[in-house]
Amino acid sequence: MPELRENPVTQSWVVIATERAKRPTDFVHPAAPRKGTANCPFCYGNEDKTPPEILAYRPQDTRPDTPGWRVRVVPNKFPALSDEGDLVATREGFFRGMTGYGVHEVVVESPEHDLTLPYQTPEQVYNVLSALKERFANLSRDRRLRYVQIFKNHGGVAGASLEHPHFQIIATPLIPAETETELKNAYDYYHEHGECLFCRMMGAELGEARRILRADDSFVTFNPYGSRFPFETWILPRHHNSSFGSISEKEVRDLALAVQDALGRLDEVLTDPPYNLILHTAPLDLEAREYYHWHIEVLPRLTIVAGFEWGTGFFINPTPPEDAARFLQEVKNPEE
Amino acid sequence: MPELRENPVTQSWVVIATERAKRPTDFVHPAAPRKGTANCPFCYGNEDKTPPEILAYRPQDTRPDTPGWRVRVVPNKFPALSDEGDLVATREGFFRGMTGYGVHEVVVESPEHDLTLPYQTPEQVYNVLSALKERFANLSRDRRLRYVQIFKNHGGVAGASLEHPHFQIIATPLIPAETETELKNAYDYYHEHGECLFCRMMGAELGEARRILRADDSFVTFNPYGSRFPFETWILPRHHNSSFGSISEKEVRDLALAVQDALGRLDEVLTDPPYNLILHTAPLDLEAREYYHWHIEVLPRLTIVAGFEWGTGFFINPTPPEDAARFLQEVKNPEE
Repeated sequence: MPELRENPVTQSWVVIATERAKRPTDFVHPAAPRKGTANCPFCYGNEDKTPPEILAYRPQDTRPDTPGWRVRVVPNKFPALSDEGDLVATREGFFRGMTGYGVHEVVVESPEHDLTLPYQTPEQVYNVLSALKERFANLSRDRRLRYVQIFKNHGGVAGASLEHPHFQIIATPLIPAETETELKNAYDYYHEHGECLFCRMMGAELGEARRILRADDSFVTFNPYGSRFPFETWILPRHHNSSFGSISEKEVRDLALAVQDALGRLDEVLTDPPYNLILHTAPLDLEAREYYHWHIEVLPRLTIVAGFEWGTGFFINPTPPEDAARFLQEVKNPEE
Repeated sequence: MPELRENPVTQSWVVIATERAKRPTDFVHPAAPRKGTANCPFCYGNEDKTPPEILAYRPQDTRPDTPGWRVRVVPNKFPALSDEGDLVATREGFFRGMTGYGVHEVVVESPEHDLTLPYQTPEQVYNVLSALKERFANLSRDRRLRYVQIFKNHGGVAGASLEHPHFQIIATPLIPAETETELKNAYDYYHEHGECLFCRMMGAELGEARRILRADDSFVTFNPYGSRFPFETWILPRHHNSSFGSISEKEVRDLALAVQDALGRLDEVLTDPPYNLILHTAPLDLEAREYYHWHIEVLPRLTIVAGFEWGTGFFINPTPPEDAARFLQEVKNPEE
């Protein structure tokens, strides 16, 4: 019989559709044709194909917007939100809107067109995460912004229009609805139980152990009880902290290893699956220190989200997370 | 500059990304290869490939599960939820779950493998909607169920695994999270303003007129101000009513025309686009008569929902609904 499970963070429900149980090999997806490096705006020598760089880690003897960089941050050429103009409320009679003020940046992970995160050196992944942290800190100072969404689309099915590995940052003048929901549930839990909902959930996952993929001093990686997607994988900082913006240097180094491990396992078991990697963190201007807990969610895009999910917010997940974990746990040395 | 718009029903925000403005021809999608009628479980003569029928409109001199039917309702062969067994709460330590009790049915729209709704006779579409209403009434009597989700996936990208036109019904033992959100917002609006949020919104759309596609005595069709998807199209009953289950015979007949009109326009402008059609209605056991308003949302699936949307609940819509409406308004006689 199928099983319904509550996701304690979103308080929405997931159908674990055991009648449709799926193994990794059931998720075969055709390898997308590669466009290659020819006109890639993120490869060395093509720096003029992007707007001028905002930040780059590069030798001191190289000039901006020339080769030599290790990580490069540029404005998105086709931004979803614009940092020109002001934030102004608009009305159309009954309807409410505002000008689309915001920031949309791209973090190019390395000059290597085909080298994804699990196959980079840990030092390079540390550089990428350091650049994300640096941009987060910088955007935090813009008082018009309320939230910084860091994410990564990998594979065309997951929305990546350019194949050269990159993260994206979209900073918004509003707290997003999903974040509001998580915040409210976490706030209520904290005030009812006197502890952080995420700390409690992580403790429960560690106690249950079946869905844990990796745990070190700084991070715990697991396939959560209420997984909406097959092979959904979360990385939580072990020490309570509401904001990615305030993680320590050691945590940045340890996060590089945790991210490489998680993506390496998924790559090994599912053969370069399309996925969205989403960093959830507290809004910029909210004192959510006690009750919110920043974390990363990796959502492999192996199933189609259809009418039932759009209508209800229920997700149908054909792979119980315990089964996903069993496959992912078997991977040895995923970083290598 | 892009524009942010609030969807008054979900209170989430949409980015109308004017820098990326898209015309219908930008959404070219390859026609999927057709599997044809050979092994189609929904074609005449293959009635034994589905579980036994629950309901069929057929001549009195034909036997169940044989050809001759005009509309046929069968249990889904691979149900997301199961009607065997009872609804039992489960626990795994901290985590909450329940057995996956529920109902999952398929409504085959006609014996014609290739005839989609806009090209059926109005009488046949009336039959389909009547079957949906009849099943809704029947499922309403099961006290274990709290919500009946009626929906339709059209095209592989939108999650249709069988190409023969059909609706699906999934009845759940819980009120879905999306429905809860709509109900809460509608409840709050009603208690603050003394009128139905949906009636107010429909009035505003009719007043503004730019996004209206069609209006008759019974239904109003428009591309809503806060459209999340390009060419998103809503059909609202003009007379306030919280539940699809209680619509009149005349409304069923008029809805057939409204649905044919809306899907016919989309088909004409976007050339057989993949879409999800989702019927939103009040939960079964809730007295939501004053403040909720049942309706249909058609969501064309022309863009990829990626990390930003999953993380935030913000949607990026490259086609302002006013522009979508202009293209859709130009279609003449969409039913023909």
